[in-house]
Amino acid sequence: MDETIQTSEISVGVVGLGLMGSSIVAALLMAGHPVKAIAPLPNELADALQRITSQLQHGEEAELLTQPLEKTVALLTLSADYGELHDCRLVLECVTEKIPIKQTVYEKIAAVVSTDTVLASNTSAIPISMLQQYVPNPERFMGVHWAEPAYMTRFMEITCGTHTSVALADWVFRLAHHWKKEPTLLRKDIRGFVTNRLMYAIYREGLHLVETGAASLDDVDKAFRYDAGSWMTMMGIFRRMDYTGLQDYPEIFRRIFPQLSNSEAVPKLMQHLVDRQLRGTQSAQGLYDYTEEEAKEWDKAFAVFNKDIYQLAARYPFRTDQRIG
Amino acid sequence: MDETIQTSEISVGVVGLGLMGSSIVAALLMAGHPVKAIAPLPNELADALQRITSQLQHGEEAELLTQPLEKTVALLTLSADYGELHDCRLVLECVTEKIPIKQTVYEKIAAVVSTDTVLASNTSAIPISMLQQYVPNPERFMGVHWAEPAYMTRFMEITCGTHTSVALADWVFRLAHHWKKEPTLLRKDIRGFVTNRLMYAIYREGLHLVETGAASLDDVDKAFRYDAGSWMTMMGIFRRMDYTGLQDYPEIFRRIFPQLSNSEAVPKLMQHLVDRQLRGTQSAQGLYDYTEEEAKEWDKAFAVFNKDIYQLAARYPFRTDQRIG
Repeated sequence: MDETIQTSEISVGVVGLGLMGSSIVAALLMAGHPVKAIAPLPNELADALQRITSQLQHGEEAELLTQPLEKTVALLTLSADYGELHDCRLVLECVTEKIPIKQTVYEKIAAVVSTDTVLASNTSAIPISMLQQYVPNPERFMGVHWAEPAYMTRFMEITCGTHTSVALADWVFRLAHHWKKEPTLLRKDIRGFVTNRLMYAIYREGLHLVETGAASLDDVDKAFRYDAGSWMTMMGIFRRMDYTGLQDYPEIFRRIFPQLSNSEAVPKLMQHLVDRQLRGTQSAQGLYDYTEEEAKEWDKAFAVFNKDIYQLAARYPFRTDQRIG
Repeated sequence: MDETIQTSEISVGVVGLGLMGSSIVAALLMAGHPVKAIAPLPNELADALQRITSQLQHGEEAELLTQPLEKTVALLTLSADYGELHDCRLVLECVTEKIPIKQTVYEKIAAVVSTDTVLASNTSAIPISMLQQYVPNPERFMGVHWAEPAYMTRFMEITCGTHTSVALADWVFRLAHHWKKEPTLLRKDIRGFVTNRLMYAIYREGLHLVETGAASLDDVDKAFRYDAGSWMTMMGIFRRMDYTGLQDYPEIFRRIFPQLSNSEAVPKLMQHLVDRQLRGTQSAQGLYDYTEEEAKEWDKAFAVFNKDIYQLAARYPFRTDQRIG
């Protein structure tokens, strides 16, 4: 933890107050930053205020606040006016994953901030080097990818584009520890970053097993919840290999790699659902069917689960300086 | 739960008392089965007894026993004599992953059990249909794949070979619920079963990212622990997709699938470590380096973590008949 950093002295801007943007605002407030939260769509303002308030209360229950709730709320400026960003040293963009929209937003931000402000996108779909074309100071632009809910997950990927200053990325990396993150810093701009590439390798194989009739959706979910789910949060994948013993892996690689799906096509199963506008729990129909009531229960249950797993994970950082003994 | 099944009336044999076999014995004892535990290598007996006893104590602390510890221990028969298996309705083979050794073990079991005994292998590496060639009653043979520690994980894959009776596999499936498992029943004998194929898809991609310098081992582990690890245990992969919303997946599939590793080769990184006889925490050197003390701490910490995550997962079964509300 870099103790020279005082979050109270660093104003942070957040542009885009959808689900993700709101929860990023909550995370930054909990860390003690003055936050300028900008709604590019003015009708987002009321919803955003309500969401952020309720997330701060959730954070208070989970004992995540560093100061009392009312002081935390007082750090927030909520507005549709980009001008509020003028004193921000860091601005996080969390608008929809469409390049022309992001481009317009970057222009509006650039018009009001100082030339040494760092600008970061929460994108998980568009390469940072591509977005870098649309900002006046590419060396001050990078990816800062959060996981939902931003105030109660430790995940964060900081990704450099071709022109990003590594020193600035490192400053954000150090800052992220004050947000209680366990950030990764990617010096190379790889498509999909780390976590998406790993997840899409699983999605490809899992959908392949289902489409070929080898297993049901539910079989795949059960196997993953109760096998990987029983160690993932503590170990990650490589420490797990070390823990199980490395000696048998090459032989199993030789046998299984040639069997894995290498498809580049969108699985028909998925395309078909999306063509029918099924969205999952949001529309109470997706890969699985839900009653309206069940779909709502997922939200409620995940809020509880997330707090539990966050607290559990915190007891197993297992860095060399923090051992269980 | 099939209430016509009385575990106390079903003797189960376990052959092979290494780490996995011992913990399977403990799981079956906790479920109330009389267990005949056979050590093919007589020098395994003392170690096995000590391990099983300590696992039962661990189970008692975690409140997993269905009857007092001494009654549970009294269900155990530990022996080097295959003859003890004579009254078993189910025998689980957990010896090393070498076909000739398994073949010899199956012959010894077949010589003593009744013709209607079900025989199952804990293999995760050899196809069930291949092993089926070496048993006298192939329709009574199947895969029953446990996760370590067997008494404190809910994972179980039951796999049919070409000749397996699905009715018998279904009987084991129902029995497994008495062992507090969330089993999957695979009617097709696919290489690597479900969980291994998913995991090897991740290993392939993860090692590819490390070998190409896109990310460090530790970056990959952090990303997975703190992203997937924050929901995996509750949702599995397909419910997660439903929860995040399906609509953007096809586009991301189209972009990312062509970027994923399709290699069939053993990653050099892994082969090199295994050639140097590095085994991971067992040898205090593997993908990561450990001090002797750290290597030991992993075992200790994982025992604690495993209990925590087991109890946490139990609160989120989220079947339609058991809602959180």
